[in-house]
Amino acid sequence: MPAVDSRPVVDLLGVLAYAELTAFDRLAEDARMAPTLGGRAALARMAAAEMAHHDRLAGRLRELGADPAAAMAPFVRALDGFHEGTRPRTWLEGLVKAYVGDGLAADFYREIAGFLPEPDRSLILEVLADTGHADFAVREVRTAIASQRALAGRLALWGRRLVGEAISQSQAVIAERDGLAQLIMEGTGDLTGIARLVERITTAHTERMRALGLKP
Amino acid sequence: MPAVDSRPVVDLLGVLAYAELTAFDRLAEDARMAPTLGGRAALARMAAAEMAHHDRLAGRLRELGADPAAAMAPFVRALDGFHEGTRPRTWLEGLVKAYVGDGLAADFYREIAGFLPEPDRSLILEVLADTGHADFAVREVRTAIASQRALAGRLALWGRRLVGEAISQSQAVIAERDGLAQLIMEGTGDLTGIARLVERITTAHTERMRALGLKP
Repeated sequence: MPAVDSRPVVDLLGVLAYAELTAFDRLAEDARMAPTLGGRAALARMAAAEMAHHDRLAGRLRELGADPAAAMAPFVRALDGFHEGTRPRTWLEGLVKAYVGDGLAADFYREIAGFLPEPDRSLILEVLADTGHADFAVREVRTAIASQRALAGRLALWGRRLVGEAISQSQAVIAERDGLAQLIMEGTGDLTGIARLVERITTAHTERMRALGLKP
Repeated sequence: MPAVDSRPVVDLLGVLAYAELTAFDRLAEDARMAPTLGGRAALARMAAAEMAHHDRLAGRLRELGADPAAAMAPFVRALDGFHEGTRPRTWLEGLVKAYVGDGLAADFYREIAGFLPEPDRSLILEVLADTGHADFAVREVRTAIASQRALAGRLALWGRRLVGEAISQSQAVIAERDGLAQLIMEGTGDLTGIARLVERITTAHTERMRALGLKP
């Protein structure tokens, strides 16, 4: 028997596999809002990269004897809820969501992955690596803001709304999966550890908003 | 100066690059209609494969000194028109469209590619290779028909409608691009050659309908 309980691992791989599938979906949808054929191809390319990540996670789940669809199922409602609650109405909102929202989620999952043994830790860090989306989003959003200052305020509000939704949805995910909650509690050690984790995530979020030229 | 006029080559690579981008789009959209998470992932995976094809075509266009977006632009209207005119309302209609419609288009492009010199001929044949979609569609459609016979008639009608739309849209594409029309005329030799080309495409289409269990 392995030293580590495999349920939290399956949970984490499952939520990530579904997150990649929804990322694919959303990027594919946003691609259709692109103002140029070049932008549309760029977003579609990023969506394809998310699917490659999904496949690696699904492959690992199978290796662990888990059915990928069954491992994803418990997280469908929370993740779909997040995306339905934060459906971008414009091309720029889509880019901010992809950069700020996915960045936040990736930081959160990276923290949890740090509590896992190999090979899952490395696999998760790899699939969370940026697929070129970040640079693309920063460039497009900064260019748009430079030519239309009023956008900055609206997009900053949008960024704050994303954080609020992300926090409430991640609480919903953790509340539903005992294994994940336990992994976080044991990994961080105590409440001080959790506070530090939240602080690291918040700092990174603030930096991303600034990179876009938006007030955090 | 190259022996072959490069404009028809750029046209063919351009229309194919845009066809792959719309195939990505459409598969991503159909994925959301999937009745299971497994089916959804399967379609998203195929969409990602289409993007990989798109990237290879865009890369070749750049090698030829052409801008991919500019090369795709002349075909946007005709291809978008086809897809708007044949928007699937169900998961099964999407599968039939992907198999029958894409099969028909692939046969047509393959015929034209045969008139091109290397390396473009091989590149095009490669990107037109099936991405696993065919087997998946055949399996799903046959299973559905087996349990609900009334579907066969409706899906067969849908298949015939796809052919009609595809023919009128491909005529629109050729009419707009002199280079492509000339390539086909010179490649086939004469009207008998064109008739044989159409016959080959029709035969393959009939076989695909039969493979799905549908009356052609």
